[in-house]
Amino acid sequence: MIRVSFKPGGQSGEVEPGLTVLDVAESLGLSITAPCGGRGRCGRCRVIVNRGCTPPTQAERDLLTGVELRNGVRLACEARLMDDAQIIVPSDSRTVGGKILAEDSWRHIKLSPNVHGHRLELPEPSLEDQRSDAERVADGLGARVEELRIDHAALAEMPAVLRDNDFSVRAIMVGDVLAAVRPPNEEPCCLGAAIDIGTTTVVTYLVDLQTGERVATASDHNPQARHGHDLISRIEYVQSAHTGLDDMRGLIVDLINRLLGEAVDQVGARRRDIYEATVVGNTCMHHLFLGLDPRNLARAPYIPVTTQPMTISAEEAGLAINRAGSVYCLPVIAGFVGADTVGVLLVSRMTDRERPTLAIDIGTNGEVMLWSGERLLVTSCAAGPAFEGGEISNGVRAAEGAIERVWLRDGSIGYATIGRARPNGICGSGIFDTVATLLDSRAVDATGRFADEQAARALPEGIASRLRGQGSAREFVLVAAADNGSGEIAFTQKDVREVQLAKGAVRAAVELLCSEAGIGTDEVHEVLLAGAFGNYIDRRSALRMGLLPEIPLERIEGVGNAAGAGALVALISTQERRRAAEIVSRAEHVELMANPQFQMAFADSMVFPEMT
Amino acid sequence: MIRVSFKPGGQSGEVEPGLTVLDVAESLGLSITAPCGGRGRCGRCRVIVNRGCTPPTQAERDLLTGVELRNGVRLACEARLMDDAQIIVPSDSRTVGGKILAEDSWRHIKLSPNVHGHRLELPEPSLEDQRSDAERVADGLGARVEELRIDHAALAEMPAVLRDNDFSVRAIMVGDVLAAVRPPNEEPCCLGAAIDIGTTTVVTYLVDLQTGERVATASDHNPQARHGHDLISRIEYVQSAHTGLDDMRGLIVDLINRLLGEAVDQVGARRRDIYEATVVGNTCMHHLFLGLDPRNLARAPYIPVTTQPMTISAEEAGLAINRAGSVYCLPVIAGFVGADTVGVLLVSRMTDRERPTLAIDIGTNGEVMLWSGERLLVTSCAAGPAFEGGEISNGVRAAEGAIERVWLRDGSIGYATIGRARPNGICGSGIFDTVATLLDSRAVDATGRFADEQAARALPEGIASRLRGQGSAREFVLVAAADNGSGEIAFTQKDVREVQLAKGAVRAAVELLCSEAGIGTDEVHEVLLAGAFGNYIDRRSALRMGLLPEIPLERIEGVGNAAGAGALVALISTQERRRAAEIVSRAEHVELMANPQFQMAFADSMVFPEMT
Repeated sequence: MIRVSFKPGGQSGEVEPGLTVLDVAESLGLSITAPCGGRGRCGRCRVIVNRGCTPPTQAERDLLTGVELRNGVRLACEARLMDDAQIIVPSDSRTVGGKILAEDSWRHIKLSPNVHGHRLELPEPSLEDQRSDAERVADGLGARVEELRIDHAALAEMPAVLRDNDFSVRAIMVGDVLAAVRPPNEEPCCLGAAIDIGTTTVVTYLVDLQTGERVATASDHNPQARHGHDLISRIEYVQSAHTGLDDMRGLIVDLINRLLGEAVDQVGARRRDIYEATVVGNTCMHHLFLGLDPRNLARAPYIPVTTQPMTISAEEAGLAINRAGSVYCLPVIAGFVGADTVGVLLVSRMTDRERPTLAIDIGTNGEVMLWSGERLLVTSCAAGPAFEGGEISNGVRAAEGAIERVWLRDGSIGYATIGRARPNGICGSGIFDTVATLLDSRAVDATGRFADEQAARALPEGIASRLRGQGSAREFVLVAAADNGSGEIAFTQKDVREVQLAKGAVRAAVELLCSEAGIGTDEVHEVLLAGAFGNYIDRRSALRMGLLPEIPLERIEGVGNAAGAGALVALISTQERRRAAEIVSRAEHVELMANPQFQMAFADSMVFPEMT
Repeated sequence: MIRVSFKPGGQSGEVEPGLTVLDVAESLGLSITAPCGGRGRCGRCRVIVNRGCTPPTQAERDLLTGVELRNGVRLACEARLMDDAQIIVPSDSRTVGGKILAEDSWRHIKLSPNVHGHRLELPEPSLEDQRSDAERVADGLGARVEELRIDHAALAEMPAVLRDNDFSVRAIMVGDVLAAVRPPNEEPCCLGAAIDIGTTTVVTYLVDLQTGERVATASDHNPQARHGHDLISRIEYVQSAHTGLDDMRGLIVDLINRLLGEAVDQVGARRRDIYEATVVGNTCMHHLFLGLDPRNLARAPYIPVTTQPMTISAEEAGLAINRAGSVYCLPVIAGFVGADTVGVLLVSRMTDRERPTLAIDIGTNGEVMLWSGERLLVTSCAAGPAFEGGEISNGVRAAEGAIERVWLRDGSIGYATIGRARPNGICGSGIFDTVATLLDSRAVDATGRFADEQAARALPEGIASRLRGQGSAREFVLVAAADNGSGEIAFTQKDVREVQLAKGAVRAAVELLCSEAGIGTDEVHEVLLAGAFGNYIDRRSALRMGLLPEIPLERIEGVGNAAGAGALVALISTQERRRAAEIVSRAEHVELMANPQFQMAFADSMVFPEMT
């Protein structure tokens, strides 16, 4: 880890080496302007880095002047930090402020938030003008007082705020509710928070709703993990302990409140300046955040308490924001198809496409979505943890030292680790590459069996020499003990089987959705890969394994962290909320467990494609 | 006082003799059916009284059989209790149950409450029917789940209640919000509370919203009186003490919660069965109940925080009813024209009349309403406490021993006290009669001056002998010390002046409203007298004093406790709520303080009418 700090904001932290300045800044909650989405094209993310950094790239040499380069000016999206560093962020890279969304596909959402500030200059009351305070404010807003809903606390504060400010005030509307009457010059006056509750990590983004700029970010691990890393363990905890549901809810709500506090501190605002929060998560996280019992999600027939978008008061949600504020929870689709899936559908604009499109989001659970051009089908399947390194002999999470790339070149194996560190295991993307490489080298056949000793003789020496053991104990030595102080790293016959089970489940889901929609898998025109899965796996490996239908590489598209993006677009755009609700009401959930063809499709799908 | 108890309910208490069984039952919170409004016409309020009761009236002999009469069957509206009694209420007089409103004018409100219970028999979920719990319930209600608002606590309880009752449940709707899903057979399932917050007394009525029956009543003194009996003292307390507003709110909210507890205990229900409350009160009580600062009500230009009808959550209101419940506060009109005035307008249906109608409600403050046939004008005037016995030398509140009636017969004075007790002072209705009697006997002239010694010689001996003292110290001895162990009771010149000020203010308000509406006072076709004032004063005395325009006695109508009735009709009828809002938006508030003619009209109005 290297130590990085930013001036003038003072944000600092320890991060893995090799990340861009832009990524590091974001991970520390600092927003750097990057209109081109961090693609090294616009040259606006100028920062000053004096040491610890990779040399200027071609893009930097193209976009920066010689004087700038000599003075240490760099592009935050290009410069990678390899050692401890101090970075100066000039005000015009800072205050222009923060791309809200990282990727082109959803960068052009029109700002139409649910929160608005209105300056009012009201006439003072007199015996000739005895309108009530509420009516005076309503008239100033151009609203009929009979129709204007006023938050009760806002009404209680109104007489004093009006008179302390000589009837010149700012009215804050949350939807059609007058949420506050404030002194006229407070800035920032209207903040919003987008909250992405992941099973593993919780991220809160703070957005200035007057400008749409993301002004701060704070994140931490989901503390519910103390009761289990996976959803089923957490649901079991809720069932087993008397206060289980309250405990789980309290853990997540307390964390969010802490993160919101950190976020407002970053911009010198107060919690009461946050008038709205949007929340996205899988159905279990959604239920736990709302205090809804998730137990029926985990047992047949897998019934959620509700799937609808919900708007509840900040108080009901337990969030320490303005007490007149509201909390919008994105809808979910089914017990195992949550708001993160809705986020994928929302930000990918999948249902706007003319030709059949498939989207896949894989964590422990796999969600598969198919837009046939007319119908939107979604399902979930138990992919298991193999794709994240779980249940794999030497599987590890994606962190420093994890083998993230494996390749075959000239008959021998190469690999790369995260942070170029000494290898300590294989993470998800490395597992994909390993299996693809084993298939390409014929060390594993289409049924998933390792080449036996006889068959191995036909393999290149660089491959054959790494195979050892017999039958189900046969394995492939990816890193020999002699080459690695941390010990040997092998990939076993059982590991191959785990991957087959996982990919078989996902591919069977794809087959069944296509069958349900009445299209062949070869008619799928595009494949969208969501989340960390989509960001990191090698698309060629995914194709080689047969996880995806056969499709040209360029028609496979990553859609990034669609869950967080879903919360952000819902925060800045009420129209996107309507779209989310429409998508959910349009989505047809296909229950694989109820489908007699699933077991057959699953068995078929476990087989790897033959060498082409 | 006599001791009365009812079977089988067990309600009992001490009451004044001479009241009807119906009145006594109501005062003890027991509801007896009386479809004709207690007028001795329908014969349905049958009860059994074996002793302590006046003989059968003509109405009873007409409507009851000889056998019934021999068995002690009586009509509750006719039989008056003169001594200790036990009364049996047969189930068909009890359960058909309880006129909600005492007077014809508002007895025919159609039951259309905001709270409804719906029995649902839902299919159980399966892999083929994976609708969420919320969607299943919405479908059962015939609602679209996208449009059904569900209380958050109701949603959280839903999965367990559905499964514990095999998906056979009752859904309780409050307005368009699903407030609860309950086991199917709980009774009473939907209660409502109508709350009348008076400056002096707070009354809560409990109503079964499935039948519209009033099932219990509980009342007590307003504990805010510890910070002052009048509104101005209470507002001063709010201003002087740091926690003044919270204190005042807490006092009233705590009392209401206690009364609600007593009321639900009377019918064996629970607080959570109350899903809605309606609240009525003058503007100051309204503000204090809602935690709105009343200070601007008491200083020019007398601005309320809001006048609109308000619906807030039970939690915001601090009421210990179902937490999904809501609290509807009737609208107010101006700083000194509150929801009790709205109650008068609502239940009198004054604005439905074709000809000009005047309504007057007098407490410490006087509210005057004029419906011209086209416009609705309302105002308030500082009548002062004289009409309630305040600032009058021997004035007392209406309680046992208060002189409530005074008359002149054959040149001598007669009087009657409440409860036939030894006289201890004069209450409001007695003050009206005293002044009318003094005017009729010429002991006081039209300018309000007592007859001096010379003029007194022309008066009957029975009057002249009671006058004594000189000039401004002159007074009239109503009860001589020799006749009364409790001491002398006199009515002084200053007392006459206090009455003149009070009636002058009210009459001036009448004059100004008529002038504003462009009609003569002689065009007023009817006069409605509201509240305790309207129930107890002698109309002849009010006319004789010149408080009212000259009008035939039969066109003066009492409208009873219109405040409480306003809360009740709003509770049982959402249409009446809409009417209340319409009335308020239609009402034009006339500010007397801003009117240059008021002082002149006030001076003119202090003069009493000449003897006719």
